[in-house]
Amino acid sequence: MIVETQSARFESIALESGAALSPVEAAYETYGNLNAARSNAILVTHAFTGDAHAAGISAEGGKPGWWDNMIGPGKAFDTDKFFIVCSNVLGGCQGTTGPASTDPATGRPYGMSFPVITIRDMVKLQKMLIDRLGIERLLAVAGGSMGGMQALEWAVTYPNFVRACIPIATTARHSAQQIAFNEVGRQAIMADPDWCNGDYYDKKPPARGLGIARMVGHITYMSDESMREKFGRRLREKDKVGFDFSVDFEVESYLRYRGSQFVNRFDANAYLYITKAEDYFDLTNGSGSLTAAFADLSTRFLIISFSSDWLYPSYQSQEIVRVLRRRNHDVAYCDLPSNYGHDAFLVDVAEQTDLVRGFLASTARATHA
Amino acid sequence: MIVETQSARFESIALESGAALSPVEAAYETYGNLNAARSNAILVTHAFTGDAHAAGISAEGGKPGWWDNMIGPGKAFDTDKFFIVCSNVLGGCQGTTGPASTDPATGRPYGMSFPVITIRDMVKLQKMLIDRLGIERLLAVAGGSMGGMQALEWAVTYPNFVRACIPIATTARHSAQQIAFNEVGRQAIMADPDWCNGDYYDKKPPARGLGIARMVGHITYMSDESMREKFGRRLREKDKVGFDFSVDFEVESYLRYRGSQFVNRFDANAYLYITKAEDYFDLTNGSGSLTAAFADLSTRFLIISFSSDWLYPSYQSQEIVRVLRRRNHDVAYCDLPSNYGHDAFLVDVAEQTDLVRGFLASTARATHA
Repeated sequence: MIVETQSARFESIALESGAALSPVEAAYETYGNLNAARSNAILVTHAFTGDAHAAGISAEGGKPGWWDNMIGPGKAFDTDKFFIVCSNVLGGCQGTTGPASTDPATGRPYGMSFPVITIRDMVKLQKMLIDRLGIERLLAVAGGSMGGMQALEWAVTYPNFVRACIPIATTARHSAQQIAFNEVGRQAIMADPDWCNGDYYDKKPPARGLGIARMVGHITYMSDESMREKFGRRLREKDKVGFDFSVDFEVESYLRYRGSQFVNRFDANAYLYITKAEDYFDLTNGSGSLTAAFADLSTRFLIISFSSDWLYPSYQSQEIVRVLRRRNHDVAYCDLPSNYGHDAFLVDVAEQTDLVRGFLASTARATHA
Repeated sequence: MIVETQSARFESIALESGAALSPVEAAYETYGNLNAARSNAILVTHAFTGDAHAAGISAEGGKPGWWDNMIGPGKAFDTDKFFIVCSNVLGGCQGTTGPASTDPATGRPYGMSFPVITIRDMVKLQKMLIDRLGIERLLAVAGGSMGGMQALEWAVTYPNFVRACIPIATTARHSAQQIAFNEVGRQAIMADPDWCNGDYYDKKPPARGLGIARMVGHITYMSDESMREKFGRRLREKDKVGFDFSVDFEVESYLRYRGSQFVNRFDANAYLYITKAEDYFDLTNGSGSLTAAFADLSTRFLIISFSSDWLYPSYQSQEIVRVLRRRNHDVAYCDLPSNYGHDAFLVDVAEQTDLVRGFLASTARATHA
């Protein structure tokens, strides 16, 4: 399945901060076919460093999508049955308008003059895209990590527009620890002299700072156990003996490599803006209570967490489940056993597939009934 | 109790790497009095960024020691009964020879020409100091985190010299995740252009890189829960509304402040060398099995871990306990409930005090019997 990323252009978007962006573009891909009733559309929302290329093989880069093990014929999101849409988030750097985009007012990249954006702003642009595609109601919105935040925001902001919501490995609000890890990444980028207050687009990017940010991220995406299984205390050069600074543990060279590669596909300013959007995310609106947010919903939920995910721990999903249950909403919840940590929603997909497939089937049945 | 840091100078120390340091100095403090039988000496070993000033009020800086809540008259390490010694580790930057010390061969600071050191090297210098103080056998060696690694290394390297060993919140070998977090700190320092390959002593230090390293450290020392209790999602300026990059969550400004202050008391190169010593630490000598290391011990153990410590998780202490038990060694173990994460051994000391006090009393009784 070769796929091409498409683009939708809109005149303007008004943001939660009060600022506006004109014009604004959304990069997106679709898989499967919209049925005649336009009732089989599912929006898949991506995590922090993801993009619109969720499935299939990219016509441009030749690479499989980030959730290709979940989306396709016969897979969890079955493209023989459903019409799947995935778009790059607002503030991103893979086709959708973000800080690396050209500011029409100056003819130069926005950089740090790009307005602060929120998860709600991301969802608003997705809604504009879904409207443009002629879809009047989504069968489901599904995503993991920051994708799960978007799915939750959809259910709360457009309660009559979403039949089903599948937030995976996510939270209703970023915790102090989650904010703290993001802040380390931001500080590492801003400490890099190549960052130049975000005005580096005609020079070299802040590669070392972005690489360090990515290293921290990778540690939080894995579990203690999965790192032990993958790397243990193995040395990169097995026969090396003695003690010096050139002796590398495999985990060190892996993280450095992943960090250094990241700069080829991700914009440092987008890192700043998107992590800030995550940190601002709080469905309780500062009240600490989700009860008001989940008052008037007609959406049914499938919520999934993973036992070894310590970045978005299971208790954060369970908090959402409890409030939804107390409101007597239709919610299914599973805490799946996995050693993969937060990465589980991307790699450990066998049980997740069963859960999503069944949930979508029952949602489709209820919709057609 | 006003205390002064003292210094012991030795002609030379041969290191595990094969290199030697000549001369070498050890900064240390003592509390209480050595009895006539010289049988009441306890060595307290400090964690990564600690120093020789474990208790009392510093004559120089006026500050209390890092374990002042554990060491003193009537406290866990009762200075009315015991003679306590604490020394700054080899490779450190608070009086003991380290990369910031002057290399007599060049008359300039060692910087990155300082030899790589190990936990065993640190313990060897401590042994030289204890010998110098005329102590023929230690009643106990006790320490948390990297101090616990030293305590374990003492029991293994000098099995007839240590009556009792109290490793707290520690491990017998650094895991991939622990190595990974240390590597992030090292990379942050080395990415700072002010680091200058470690040759910054007559210029400005790599303050931003060291600050970022410290931020990562702080996150790992706290627990998700203690961060939530301490900071939650509170904003630094309570009345600020809207979304922009100047809106600070309290946790962000706290971490940035702690990072920026750290440079005033810690040397960036010492950060590199000491974290590397931690990462090399492996009592299994690469075999993965502790059985050989713990073969011939006459030492009794009190091992303590904390329920919310995710940097040195309880399972790492329990691994040590199991092997010691299988060898039928005398070992007491408690996993103390605490919300403070790894910091618990420094701050949540009520139960820890009871455990240590009782254990030392029974050790002293057995010794005198």
